[in-house]
Amino acid sequence: MKVNDWDKLVSGVKAGDVRSLSRMITRVENRADGWKKAMQQLYSGTGRAKVVGITGSPGAGKSTLVNALASELSKRGKTVGIIAVDPSSPFSGGALLGDRLRMAEVAVNPDIFIRSMATRGALGGLCQGARDVARILDAFGKDIVLIETVGVGQDEIEVVKTADCVLVVCVPGQGDGIQALKAGIMEIADIYVVNKADRPGADEVVADIEGMLSIADQGKLDTAPVVKTSAATGEGVESLCNTLFERLVHARNKEQWLDKRVREEILSLVETQIMESLLCAWQESGALNKMVEAVLNKKADPYSLVDALLPDLSKEALNRQTAKATKTIIGPENS
Amino acid sequence: MKVNDWDKLVSGVKAGDVRSLSRMITRVENRADGWKKAMQQLYSGTGRAKVVGITGSPGAGKSTLVNALASELSKRGKTVGIIAVDPSSPFSGGALLGDRLRMAEVAVNPDIFIRSMATRGALGGLCQGARDVARILDAFGKDIVLIETVGVGQDEIEVVKTADCVLVVCVPGQGDGIQALKAGIMEIADIYVVNKADRPGADEVVADIEGMLSIADQGKLDTAPVVKTSAATGEGVESLCNTLFERLVHARNKEQWLDKRVREEILSLVETQIMESLLCAWQESGALNKMVEAVLNKKADPYSLVDALLPDLSKEALNRQTAKATKTIIGPENS
Repeated sequence: MKVNDWDKLVSGVKAGDVRSLSRMITRVENRADGWKKAMQQLYSGTGRAKVVGITGSPGAGKSTLVNALASELSKRGKTVGIIAVDPSSPFSGGALLGDRLRMAEVAVNPDIFIRSMATRGALGGLCQGARDVARILDAFGKDIVLIETVGVGQDEIEVVKTADCVLVVCVPGQGDGIQALKAGIMEIADIYVVNKADRPGADEVVADIEGMLSIADQGKLDTAPVVKTSAATGEGVESLCNTLFERLVHARNKEQWLDKRVREEILSLVETQIMESLLCAWQESGALNKMVEAVLNKKADPYSLVDALLPDLSKEALNRQTAKATKTIIGPENS
Repeated sequence: MKVNDWDKLVSGVKAGDVRSLSRMITRVENRADGWKKAMQQLYSGTGRAKVVGITGSPGAGKSTLVNALASELSKRGKTVGIIAVDPSSPFSGGALLGDRLRMAEVAVNPDIFIRSMATRGALGGLCQGARDVARILDAFGKDIVLIETVGVGQDEIEVVKTADCVLVVCVPGQGDGIQALKAGIMEIADIYVVNKADRPGADEVVADIEGMLSIADQGKLDTAPVVKTSAATGEGVESLCNTLFERLVHARNKEQWLDKRVREEILSLVETQIMESLLCAWQESGALNKMVEAVLNKKADPYSLVDALLPDLSKEALNRQTAKATKTIIGPENS
């Protein structure tokens, strides 16, 4: 992609042009040549939007809830971007289509922009992808970005953890409660939502969560609230919206949280860039194929190979290189 | 840890000493100094054990099933290692303890060795960790290694994908079927297990799965079988065991599969080693802190920083380095 085209996209996004927004997201997701320079250009115009992560077990009605929440936010004059993080599965075409259909109501609202993101492969990048898309939506001028995950795996948890506020959605009648805990998502919640609250057992789920919190949060002043909703009918969504706004102001120890978020982003960008460059180089030279062959022919084991491949990872060498590099960007040591 | 100690552990594991096994797993998991050399020493004695991955939605009764399957395998004269992959959650202590208690029956069987592994942080390593532990169990002499995942996220899917055969466990009465698909786990199954088959709706789940498979596998000769079990009573477990043995012989296109597995392992080892070394170096020099500060003070954006940090990732430079390194292990180009 030409530098010129990127310039047009970036100024289009900044000017609020929806087609530029769509195109820029696609190209940044695909890591088209020059994507990083374009994100650098956008960067100064970001930091205004609030990002809300929504996760919970499959079948908890997250899509419907996100739909209802987006409509409510829109009614209150907020512009909304939705990022739906879907696992990439050859089987799931139908299910995802279903989701998008359920979202039809918000899809025709010009203040709401919806975007699906596929779960990436083993080399990761899902978190950074979500961060990038949220940032583009931010630069575009969206007030609130909702990130909805379909699953509750580690990857999805990492994605919602990049948000300013995390909603964990539970429903009555999904096993014995303890099972939900196993997924490891309870402790990342800023707000618990018990959805499908018109079903029997909703109050028990609320009591279960509050019981857990009273044990886990002993001594903390700022226990996460539990809100009941019935997203399909819209009940409780207004109250959820109020709680969300409260939390967005108060929820986190801002400084520590920002620090951690930036730290993770730098590491993730470094990791992805190194691995992508290596894969690309090895693909061209056939080096990886040769290594795999050597292991299969018992000429080498993976552990020895990796030791030989990465000879100079000493702290001294790495820090020498880092100091040299950061000097050009951040300035000399004493800055 | 001294080289001497590692030598003792490695020969202990090879000789079938359980205490050496436990200790070696812990030290390799913690990446204690010298772990890679020790794994190199073990490597030649591995490749015999069959690895079986078991995954499925929370509440599907995976632990009970793994328990029952291990007992059945033991009855048939096989020695078994179990790796339970648990998400690391401050809340989940109780639930995990519950799992381990349910496993009490197999825990007293000397032919069965159980090991829990926590889900790792953002820098990954869970897959490699499971691979390493499975390999140690293999070198120890276990015939079958069962890897059970608690969740169904991308991480857990990657873990079970390293197995020779994957069991996906479903249960009746968990939503509308389509929800289960969303998790993206259906397509990795070599065997589908419908557990808790004494509950109403079991046959419908079987029919649902078979219906999907008939669409997805059109033209394939080798459709994954669906087996009904009731792990709590033991019903169907014998039949599952038979199916498992059949699949372990026939299931995969061996060569392609091994190739892919080795490829992934090399990349994952490289990735982990680079990132751990960088983190370690940056922690000592404070370089990461300085970068984070620069971003927070708007002196730099993450994208520019990373560009500056990684200046020489050109294909030529990487391949020059790779060729030099692999030559010492694999031998010259024409090998």
